[in-house]
Amino acid sequence: MMKGEFSAEELTRAYLARIAEREETVGAWAYLDEDLAIAQAQALDAKKKAGEKPGLLHGLPVGLKDIFDTADMPTECDSALYAGRRPIEDSAVAILLRQAGAIILGKTVTTEFAISSPGKTVNPHNPKHTPGGSSSGSAAAIADGMVALAVGTQTGGSVIRPASYCGVFGYKPTFGSISRRGMSILARRLDHVGVFGRTVEDLGLIGDALMAHDPGDWDMLASPEKDLVSNLSSSKRWKNNEAPRFAFVRTPAWKEAEGNMQTVFEDFINKLGKIVEEVELEGIFVDVIKCHATIMDANLVANLGEALEKTPEKLRQETRRRIEKGLSVTGAQYIQALGLAEVQGQALDRLFDHYDAILTPSAPGEAPGDLTTTGRAVFNAMWTLMGVPAVTIPLLEGEKGLPIGVQVVGRKGDDAKILDAARWLWDQFGGISYRGKV
Amino acid sequence: MMKGEFSAEELTRAYLARIAEREETVGAWAYLDEDLAIAQAQALDAKKKAGEKPGLLHGLPVGLKDIFDTADMPTECDSALYAGRRPIEDSAVAILLRQAGAIILGKTVTTEFAISSPGKTVNPHNPKHTPGGSSSGSAAAIADGMVALAVGTQTGGSVIRPASYCGVFGYKPTFGSISRRGMSILARRLDHVGVFGRTVEDLGLIGDALMAHDPGDWDMLASPEKDLVSNLSSSKRWKNNEAPRFAFVRTPAWKEAEGNMQTVFEDFINKLGKIVEEVELEGIFVDVIKCHATIMDANLVANLGEALEKTPEKLRQETRRRIEKGLSVTGAQYIQALGLAEVQGQALDRLFDHYDAILTPSAPGEAPGDLTTTGRAVFNAMWTLMGVPAVTIPLLEGEKGLPIGVQVVGRKGDDAKILDAARWLWDQFGGISYRGKV
Repeated sequence: MMKGEFSAEELTRAYLARIAEREETVGAWAYLDEDLAIAQAQALDAKKKAGEKPGLLHGLPVGLKDIFDTADMPTECDSALYAGRRPIEDSAVAILLRQAGAIILGKTVTTEFAISSPGKTVNPHNPKHTPGGSSSGSAAAIADGMVALAVGTQTGGSVIRPASYCGVFGYKPTFGSISRRGMSILARRLDHVGVFGRTVEDLGLIGDALMAHDPGDWDMLASPEKDLVSNLSSSKRWKNNEAPRFAFVRTPAWKEAEGNMQTVFEDFINKLGKIVEEVELEGIFVDVIKCHATIMDANLVANLGEALEKTPEKLRQETRRRIEKGLSVTGAQYIQALGLAEVQGQALDRLFDHYDAILTPSAPGEAPGDLTTTGRAVFNAMWTLMGVPAVTIPLLEGEKGLPIGVQVVGRKGDDAKILDAARWLWDQFGGISYRGKV
Repeated sequence: MMKGEFSAEELTRAYLARIAEREETVGAWAYLDEDLAIAQAQALDAKKKAGEKPGLLHGLPVGLKDIFDTADMPTECDSALYAGRRPIEDSAVAILLRQAGAIILGKTVTTEFAISSPGKTVNPHNPKHTPGGSSSGSAAAIADGMVALAVGTQTGGSVIRPASYCGVFGYKPTFGSISRRGMSILARRLDHVGVFGRTVEDLGLIGDALMAHDPGDWDMLASPEKDLVSNLSSSKRWKNNEAPRFAFVRTPAWKEAEGNMQTVFEDFINKLGKIVEEVELEGIFVDVIKCHATIMDANLVANLGEALEKTPEKLRQETRRRIEKGLSVTGAQYIQALGLAEVQGQALDRLFDHYDAILTPSAPGEAPGDLTTTGRAVFNAMWTLMGVPAVTIPLLEGEKGLPIGVQVVGRKGDDAKILDAARWLWDQFGGISYRGKV
């Protein structure tokens, strides 16, 4: 970040210039009003000049996934059902961004209702490849240098996967860390707000701005982890400059790897040497992806079943297919899945008695060269279901020269530690920033 | 209670004598081992003689519903599936009873799996009438003077209703107040442990003994309300000797009243005069009983669906019918019911900004003169779903001369206050104790 070196207006104009140059190719934005963005920036500059204390994100342009309500811009969820919808109030995330002095530059493209039917966005590294989803626009906008920070959501793998595909940093905090009030809800048990940036510090910075208790989201933690940035102090945390204790976990998704991902990832693990141990998950996790699907699918019906019934013509085919999938989930199956997830959560928690963080792939491989899909969430669903913090850092590269992320996963509530472990890893093994490649 | 006046053995022998006299008529016990009971009592007397500090329930014989595991007695849930089952460990409730110095006198009769297929127990006031269920034996044993205290459970109305039918005091604490580890689970979201006694003080006493946090029940409150007995101090709590502020709530169940219950209850409310106001629940509660049924029914399948599928011949017809009812509940309906219940809970909570306690009937009327049913939980399901504390006191009498309870309901977590309000009410308007009638 370049806080203070430029005025908010200068910074905003620079990003808008980049967008003007690249948006036709990348298609990251669902809504962008240059005048509104500049007006926000000017107001912030004026406040600063008047001596007001700048917020944590003062003057930083942020891309906001188009499922978060904004009172001054439409919020359409990429759905015909919401075409032209203008919410009367800001979502909690929009409120917090503004309170922190951020400029909400515009609304970024989402898959329809944040499920799986792709929007218009492509992968900035190769426009024939998907950027991933559902937070497609947020990930692509960061990768393309169109915005400083971005907000997305993850119900399956919608933050970590697009960040991995686009070669940026992504962070899905512990469940309940960021309010979802005024956000389109897919599955209350699974929906997480997540963030994108160019460095681990970026993730901590916007995390610090967004983690405030909001009684309007009944699943929120009373005290989400705080001071993520000030706790990014690898040298202090890891005793005697030792490394974090990493566990390499293949997860039940390993067999679904694509391309040369397995080799690339194993090579990376080998490079880490003694600081990592391979850990096999207990048998109880064998059906964890199915367990996640049961919970997600039933929730899709709870939230979109009425739309499917009454206005199916306003939903795209893929979205209809996904909602229909949930119609067969019974109440008893749902209850059993919730119960199993809780037992799995306890088992996973015990693993963190022995390791600081889990290392596992962020996605099945490079971004698929297919714009009719946004890829698969198999490497993310488990961590979403467990509600544990996950960070992806763009450390690896696949056979097509596209990025593959390393996912760093921690114990529930250990967000600061896991960001710190991710930064440690980046300090040691990073360097190939995909930023320069676009 | 008569702590200290008699030895534990004397007290136990007195209750056993009463049981010997009446059990053939009442049928409250699923298992009773006189020698084991006396051995427990003698051990307690010996400890006391040796100078050991007596527990909260020292020497008091307690009846334990036969869905709580006991290592020294069978636990059969009145089911052919569990016939002869001997658990290897005590349930949390059994452990806490023993730690408090209680004598687990025996296991009391439950409906099959605590659902609705009646056991052998009859109503001590009239053996042609049901004692109510599912905690039939516990309520009847208290009413008949067979035991000092008793433990039951409520998923629909299984504590408050039988207490009302049997003319005793019953208490269902705030959800999560008493551990359900080692108890047969019907519906984790709804199952409450509850207690029976002869006075409000009795309820507080056994409540105090049982309310201890147990990490083995994941839904437990970290700090259940404590010191119920020492907080039974009406004169101190209600300012200037004023009355508690009562709200009379008919609930959507009102129209399902039986016999002359409506008149009897309205007469009672009129007698209270200015200390009570009638309050109509918000429209959001119109389907609250259905909402409870959706959650309960789906959970029956989650917990007993396998038994229905694999060994239907070992389940009684009524139990099969009840489990089958849940097969049609979808995951989406379940999620929506959970969400609705949460909104209702918030609305109910606001009501307690204006009133100390709700007054509402404990059951549709007197105990039905039909031993093929245990009556209906319509006046209880709502409070079970809301997880709020409910106490029933045997204040009223119906046209057949059988008891009708007044249910005192409070804000979640306000257990001490609600017991205190119940005692205040009893002090003012009680006196016809059904104890003397048997």
